[in-house]
Amino acid sequence: MIELYTAGTPNGWKVSMTLEEMQIPYEVNLVNLSKGEQRLPEFLKISPNGRIPAIIDTDTGISVFESGAIMVYLAEKSGQLMPSDLAGKYDVMQWLMFQMSGIGPMQGQAVTFVRYFPENIPQAIDRYCNESRRLYEVLDNHLADRDYIAGEYSIADIANYSWVRSYYWARVNIDGLDHLRAWMDRMVAKPGILRGCEVPQGAKNSKDLKQGGASITTT
Amino acid sequence: MIELYTAGTPNGWKVSMTLEEMQIPYEVNLVNLSKGEQRLPEFLKISPNGRIPAIIDTDTGISVFESGAIMVYLAEKSGQLMPSDLAGKYDVMQWLMFQMSGIGPMQGQAVTFVRYFPENIPQAIDRYCNESRRLYEVLDNHLADRDYIAGEYSIADIANYSWVRSYYWARVNIDGLDHLRAWMDRMVAKPGILRGCEVPQGAKNSKDLKQGGASITTT
Repeated sequence: MIELYTAGTPNGWKVSMTLEEMQIPYEVNLVNLSKGEQRLPEFLKISPNGRIPAIIDTDTGISVFESGAIMVYLAEKSGQLMPSDLAGKYDVMQWLMFQMSGIGPMQGQAVTFVRYFPENIPQAIDRYCNESRRLYEVLDNHLADRDYIAGEYSIADIANYSWVRSYYWARVNIDGLDHLRAWMDRMVAKPGILRGCEVPQGAKNSKDLKQGGASITTT
Repeated sequence: MIELYTAGTPNGWKVSMTLEEMQIPYEVNLVNLSKGEQRLPEFLKISPNGRIPAIIDTDTGISVFESGAIMVYLAEKSGQLMPSDLAGKYDVMQWLMFQMSGIGPMQGQAVTFVRYFPENIPQAIDRYCNESRRLYEVLDNHLADRDYIAGEYSIADIANYSWVRSYYWARVNIDGLDHLRAWMDRMVAKPGILRGCEVPQGAKNSKDLKQGGASITTT
């Protein structure tokens, strides 16, 4: 059983989509970001950076933070969505890292300057919307002659899709990126992807952190 | 034999330090960023995002881009600097991802706005210098009761160190971060770390890309 600590963000959805697609049993614990629950000492014990998502695997007692690390852990645990041969595995790994170091942070900055920053700074908005678009173009080119990013469907698709699906919110222009759009259509057709995007709706309340003691109330 | 395509940047040094510390034989091929060699079609075949570092492992024929993916590949190949047990391995993996998604991108933005952006935007400088400092504080807290990030010395230390060592260039304040400083002293005392930071000085010129054909001249 996986205890998932999450919230409704692209990095959170990456893990809930992965769990749904792998059909691994899990329990959702909402970390209420607007109440600052990500900074509670009990949560920091499993996620010292105070960021969601994090998991506790009650089968092994292992906790993992950082969505990318969790996805690789779940792929190794389940033997799904990442090939076991060296070439296939590192094809997935490099495109997962592309999302972790590229699309995630850059699109995250675009959202910040487009939606949340106290001042309007057009140069920063342009910088991050343009860089996100450039990264989308890399994916679009790569998908020109394959259905999935690493050939076979994998966690690299889920990681990148979780961000790309929110292009509109970040004002990233996807005009002309036809291969990317076709891939998005393939992704959204998967039942587990759709279900994963609905997490943490219906999350259980007031779950105790197994390694912490005190409860994170989630009202 | 590892063919390393790199340049003198924190992400490049991550891999040269790793190779030096693991004592894996490698050949350096400088990708001259100021000449735009990272956008040459031959290089894009192994690194479609046009970013260094990338490797070709001539033993397996596998190429890998993204520094984080390369480091995990080398750890798995050599059986070094990442435990093989599940708990130890994912402790390393989560802190490697912390660097890939956090310290790397945020400090990278700090450097951009401090050093290279055509306009002076104090709000952006503050945002990224402060966020980098916050991430350093997470590391500093974590290092209060351990010598290395994941307990034993690992690729997670090398990944984070490669960025943290450049704190001054990014104007990140490290005042009072005594545990971080002590860890930096432990890292810089390692001969392979020092040698890795000197790459690509002395890189061979005009190497051919094994999977490309045309040469990347490196004058």
